[in-house]
Amino acid sequence: MFEIFETKTRITDDNDAHAAELRSELESKNVFFINLMGSPGAGKTSTLVRTINALKDEFSIGVMEADMDSDVDAQTISQLGVRVIQLHTGGSCHMDADMTKRGLDRMTVEGLDVVFLENVGNLVCPAEFDVGAALKVMILSAPEGDDKPLKYPLMFKVSNVMLENKIETKDVFDYDPEKAEERARALNPDIIAFRVSAKTGEGFDEWTSWLKEQIRTWRSER
Amino acid sequence: MFEIFETKTRITDDNDAHAAELRSELESKNVFFINLMGSPGAGKTSTLVRTINALKDEFSIGVMEADMDSDVDAQTISQLGVRVIQLHTGGSCHMDADMTKRGLDRMTVEGLDVVFLENVGNLVCPAEFDVGAALKVMILSAPEGDDKPLKYPLMFKVSNVMLENKIETKDVFDYDPEKAEERARALNPDIIAFRVSAKTGEGFDEWTSWLKEQIRTWRSER
Repeated sequence: MFEIFETKTRITDDNDAHAAELRSELESKNVFFINLMGSPGAGKTSTLVRTINALKDEFSIGVMEADMDSDVDAQTISQLGVRVIQLHTGGSCHMDADMTKRGLDRMTVEGLDVVFLENVGNLVCPAEFDVGAALKVMILSAPEGDDKPLKYPLMFKVSNVMLENKIETKDVFDYDPEKAEERARALNPDIIAFRVSAKTGEGFDEWTSWLKEQIRTWRSER
Repeated sequence: MFEIFETKTRITDDNDAHAAELRSELESKNVFFINLMGSPGAGKTSTLVRTINALKDEFSIGVMEADMDSDVDAQTISQLGVRVIQLHTGGSCHMDADMTKRGLDRMTVEGLDVVFLENVGNLVCPAEFDVGAALKVMILSAPEGDDKPLKYPLMFKVSNVMLENKIETKDVFDYDPEKAEERARALNPDIIAFRVSAKTGEGFDEWTSWLKEQIRTWRSER
C-alpha cells in the first residue's frame, strides 16, 4: 500500500539553494536520489518497474510518484514491494526542491539506498527545477520522434542520461537513434544514451549495469 | 518563407480577460481561431498538415507555430503555401493570451478565414491558459496510453475535440480507444473524439468534414 500526499506549489526564488541543501542532506544520509523525467506516455513507470527489479536485490529502494492527479502509477509500483508515496502536485507541471523535500520527509528515507522521483510527464518545466538529485535521467520514446532535442533543448542539456525507450518501434515511427543522440550531444556532450524497451527488456542489462556501477561508486565515496 | 519571432512570457493576472478581448477581436474580423495542443511528439504538426490540405481550397489559412526553440515545424508548414510564423516562447511551456495577441498582430490576420496555433508540446500548462480560441483541439496519441485522461485531467476538461492519433498503432501499445474516450467523457461529457492517423490518413475525412461544418456555421453566425 502507499499514501497519497497533496503537495502544493510554493513560488520560490531560491529553488537552486534549496536543491543544494537537499542534495547535501541526502548525501549525508547516503541516499542516491534519481530524478526521472519525460513526456506523458514516454514510459516512465514501466521503465521504473524494470529498473527497480534489476536493482532491488542489491539496494533498498523508495519511489515518489508525482502526478497532477490519480494514483495509477503508485498502484503499479507498490506491487514491487518497495516503499512508495504518491505526490499530488495540485496542478503544478513540475516538482521543485521544496515539494521534493516535503515528499521525502513524508515518505522517510531512513533505511533506503536509492530513491527515484518519477516527475510529472512534461519535457519542459521539470528541466528548469533542480530537485537535489544525484542523477537526472530523461526518457525519449521513439514514437515522439528524433527531433525532440531541437524543440526541447533544456531537458537534454540538464540530463545526465537519455533513455531511448520503445526502441523496438523505431522503424514504425522513422525514429533514427543516431540522429537523436547526435542532436542531444550537440546540446550536452556528456549525455549518456541507452537504447531500451521497457516492453521487451531490450537494452536494460546495459542500462541497469551502468546505473548499479554509478550507485556503488557514489556510495563508496561517501 | 516564414519569420521567426521571439515572444517573451509576461506574468499576468488577467489572462482570461485578455483572452476574451482577443476572442472578440477575432470574431469581429471573422477569423476562426483554433488552439491545437498535445504532448511532445503526439503528431501536432503532421495532423496540421493533413487538416490544412483538406481545408485550404475553401478557406484562407494562417498558422502560428509555438516552440521553445527551433523552426522545424514552421519549415514543414511553410511548404503548404499558407501564411506561417514561428513563435519562440523564450523557455515558456505554454502560450498565453498576450503572447498569442502579439503573434497574431505580427503575422497579421487580414484576409485569413482560419488561424491555427500549434501550442508548445505539453499536456499540462497550455490547458491552463485561454488564448482566445474559438475551438480547442487536443491530440492524444496511441503510444502515450489510454490512461492519460486520469493523469492530465485539465487538458481533457477544457478541450472541445480529442484527436486520437497514430491510431493504426493501437494494438502495438495496448491502447483502447473506448477506454480513453470513456475516461475523457467522465471529465468532459461534451468532448468529441475522432480516431485518426496523420500517417495513413485514417479518420481524417470524418474529422475535417466536421471541422469544416463548424467553421461554416461559425462564419454564418457572424
